[in-house]
Amino acid sequence: MQFHSDKLVVIGVGLIGGSAAAALRRAGAVKRLVGVGRGRANVERALELGVIDEAVQDAAEAVRGADTVLLAVPVQQNERLLAALAPALEPGTLVTDAGSTKQDFVAAVRRILPTHLGTVVPGHPIAGAEHTGVEAASPSLFQAKNVVLAPLEENDPGAVDRVEAMWRTCGARVMRMSAAHHDRIFSAVSHLPHMLAYSLVHMIANRPDARELFDFAASGFRDFTRIAGSSPEMWRDIALANRDALLTDLESYQSELERLVQSLRAADAQALERMFEAARAARTAWLARNQAK
Amino acid sequence: MQFHSDKLVVIGVGLIGGSAAAALRRAGAVKRLVGVGRGRANVERALELGVIDEAVQDAAEAVRGADTVLLAVPVQQNERLLAALAPALEPGTLVTDAGSTKQDFVAAVRRILPTHLGTVVPGHPIAGAEHTGVEAASPSLFQAKNVVLAPLEENDPGAVDRVEAMWRTCGARVMRMSAAHHDRIFSAVSHLPHMLAYSLVHMIANRPDARELFDFAASGFRDFTRIAGSSPEMWRDIALANRDALLTDLESYQSELERLVQSLRAADAQALERMFEAARAARTAWLARNQAK
Repeated sequence: MQFHSDKLVVIGVGLIGGSAAAALRRAGAVKRLVGVGRGRANVERALELGVIDEAVQDAAEAVRGADTVLLAVPVQQNERLLAALAPALEPGTLVTDAGSTKQDFVAAVRRILPTHLGTVVPGHPIAGAEHTGVEAASPSLFQAKNVVLAPLEENDPGAVDRVEAMWRTCGARVMRMSAAHHDRIFSAVSHLPHMLAYSLVHMIANRPDARELFDFAASGFRDFTRIAGSSPEMWRDIALANRDALLTDLESYQSELERLVQSLRAADAQALERMFEAARAARTAWLARNQAK
Repeated sequence: MQFHSDKLVVIGVGLIGGSAAAALRRAGAVKRLVGVGRGRANVERALELGVIDEAVQDAAEAVRGADTVLLAVPVQQNERLLAALAPALEPGTLVTDAGSTKQDFVAAVRRILPTHLGTVVPGHPIAGAEHTGVEAASPSLFQAKNVVLAPLEENDPGAVDRVEAMWRTCGARVMRMSAAHHDRIFSAVSHLPHMLAYSLVHMIANRPDARELFDFAASGFRDFTRIAGSSPEMWRDIALANRDALLTDLESYQSELERLVQSLRAADAQALERMFEAARAARTAWLARNQAK
């Protein structure tokens, strides 16, 4: 399926929304691109950069006559945003989102847009967010990246195919799974590591000798804690939105760490080496598979 | 103090030993550079690369007539190596090491070389070890890097100054502290993060859905787990050598993580955001200080 839109509305013209807009424009897949943003400056900048054709402040006004709407705002804003769209959203307008958690979005959609379940397709583009804002947007951001769609049972098959085609046009690989499955996966490989990194930096920052400790921290520490530089608001919301899966993984990690503590307390050299070796081997195999892709 | 050596012996011509040799040669600070290695291939390669002038297999034979000896072998080999050197080591020959833990080295030196305490100066160059072997050696490896010296009370002040001058000649910043203080610092900023990264990868690798989880792991996960690609033998030995400090830090981390779990269980958005924000602010301030250096 070829993706084309006569009027695409991107709500939240930051890194993700701006990059999707830029990629779709470059592909010649969109006739008119409307951007909606809370901050006037960001949207004006998107206009200047040519990422969007038109800036609108009111989301409900913007989606009138749109065939496609991409929600690319922080997850905790989705609920308020869906409520604002509800009275204005026309039947048949395709809506998709870019949030990092999916069960909370699904629940909000069911509650707020019960008459639009055929055409609201939950999605999650997996793309680095080290930089933020439309200034960092790039039409190549999604090139060879994964996008997960978590379709509702009620979704029209054509609507899901259309969102898939949109992301493929941006250069992404698209896969489908349930929202619960999505949230379990990202709890383990993304949300949990963020919690662990924040916890380490917080622990060190609260020690009386914090300044000296940081002075001796080197590149290994820098890489390990890179994700602790992420937006606190965003990660507060992700943690809460995916609380159940994340608590399960945190408990599992606590058990893993307790086993390590026991091995170390017992000075069990073999157990330590076996564990480190298994971890290294798994990571090496993962990198090799990624390289091969 | 200007560093000069008529005969410098590097035992263990890998990344660290090879880079020190290359830096001292480039600075014109060494007349004759002798390399000692267990693996014939690595030492031959060091000869070919011009990193050393002469390769010797027997450490005791190599140190005869040397004014300076740098031990750059995995920490668990130090004890056997010191025992091999003991009968051959001449009074006045300066010995220093490059191990990541210092209290264990100090204990081994006191036990094995009790008549050489004036001239054995424990050290730890803090330089990345993502790559290993003499092929990865570079005369610039220590440029602007930290080297910690943990002098013995019995050290001749001139011996400590000489080791300091050697590392300064390699381009490093040199600081001095006690072995116990060193081990506490590196437990927190290096050894603990390694344990945490190994634990996360091990936990994920043991899940029945490991393959799928890895498939969705992205750049945040890659950076966070980079140190879990480190040598299992080396980290087994470091963990055991610095067991007490590391167990203390692991317990402190477990408490920190348990507080996070409690906040999440209570859905305490404010506590989560406060913690993430404090961590991010501390990390940002650290990076800014490092930039300013």
